[in-house]
Amino acid sequence: MNTFVLHERLAADCLVVGDWPLCRVLLMNDSHYPWLILVPRRPNLREIFELDAADRAQFLAESCTLGEALMQQFAGDKLNVAALGNMVPQLHIHHVVRKVGDAAWPAPVWGKVPAQPYAPAAAEALLNSLRAKLSL
Amino acid sequence: MNTFVLHERLAADCLVVGDWPLCRVLLMNDSHYPWLILVPRRPNLREIFELDAADRAQFLAESCTLGEALMQQFAGDKLNVAALGNMVPQLHIHHVVRKVGDAAWPAPVWGKVPAQPYAPAAAEALLNSLRAKLSL
Repeated sequence: MNTFVLHERLAADCLVVGDWPLCRVLLMNDSHYPWLILVPRRPNLREIFELDAADRAQFLAESCTLGEALMQQFAGDKLNVAALGNMVPQLHIHHVVRKVGDAAWPAPVWGKVPAQPYAPAAAEALLNSLRAKLSL
Repeated sequence: MNTFVLHERLAADCLVVGDWPLCRVLLMNDSHYPWLILVPRRPNLREIFELDAADRAQFLAESCTLGEALMQQFAGDKLNVAALGNMVPQLHIHHVVRKVGDAAWPAPVWGKVPAQPYAPAAAEALLNSLRAKLSL
C-alpha cells in the first residue's frame, strides 16, 4: 500500500494519544506499565534504518522527547526503548517506563505478564494527562 | 567517574569488535544470533535522551549503519534494536539479527535461551569478517 494505515494488531491493543509530525503516538492498553509506542506514519516500513535522513532525525527527536517526558511524569527508574517487530511487521517503537518491582522487573515486558486493560475512566484520565504533557 | 569505562558485565559477556567515533562495538558471545551492542563512550549515561544533540545524531547514524550492515551480512528476517538496561545500568543498545525459527523466535532474545559461546576459531573468524564489513 502507498498510504499509512495503522496495523490492525496495534489498533486493537492500543489507544491513540495523537499524532506528532512523524509518528502516531499510542498508549498500550496495559495498566502494568506506562507503555507508549511510536509508529512512523510512512507506508511499508519495517526497520528504523529504512527511514530517510530527515525522518531519522525527526524520529529520534520524537523518541527522546517522549522518553524524557514519560520518565518525568511517571518517576521511572529505567526507560526501555525497543524496535522488535517479530510479530507485528509494521515499524513501531516501544517506550516503556520501568520501575523496580513492577510486574516484569527486571525482565523485559514482552510475553511476561498478560496485559491488564485500563478501566475506561482511568484510560480517559491518562490519555488527557499524556496529551497535555506531550502537547498532543 | 568522569571517563568512559566499559561495564564489567558487558566486558565479561562480549567480545570487542572495535570503536566507531561515538560507540564501542561489541559482539555478544552467544552464537545463537548475530548480536551486536553499541555502547556510547561517554561516562555516566543511562538513557538515549541523555546524549547531547551531536551525540544523538552520531548514535543514530552508527545504529543505522550497523543494523543495515548486519541485516545484509546475515540475511536476517528482522532486526531487533533495544535499549533496556534493567540489569546493566550503563547505556548500551542491542542490535540482534533475527531469523524465523531461531532459538527464541518469535520471542525477544533476553532470558529465553542460555548463551552458547562461540568456539575460539569461530569467534576470531566472525570478528574479522565484522571488522571488514564495518570498517573497524
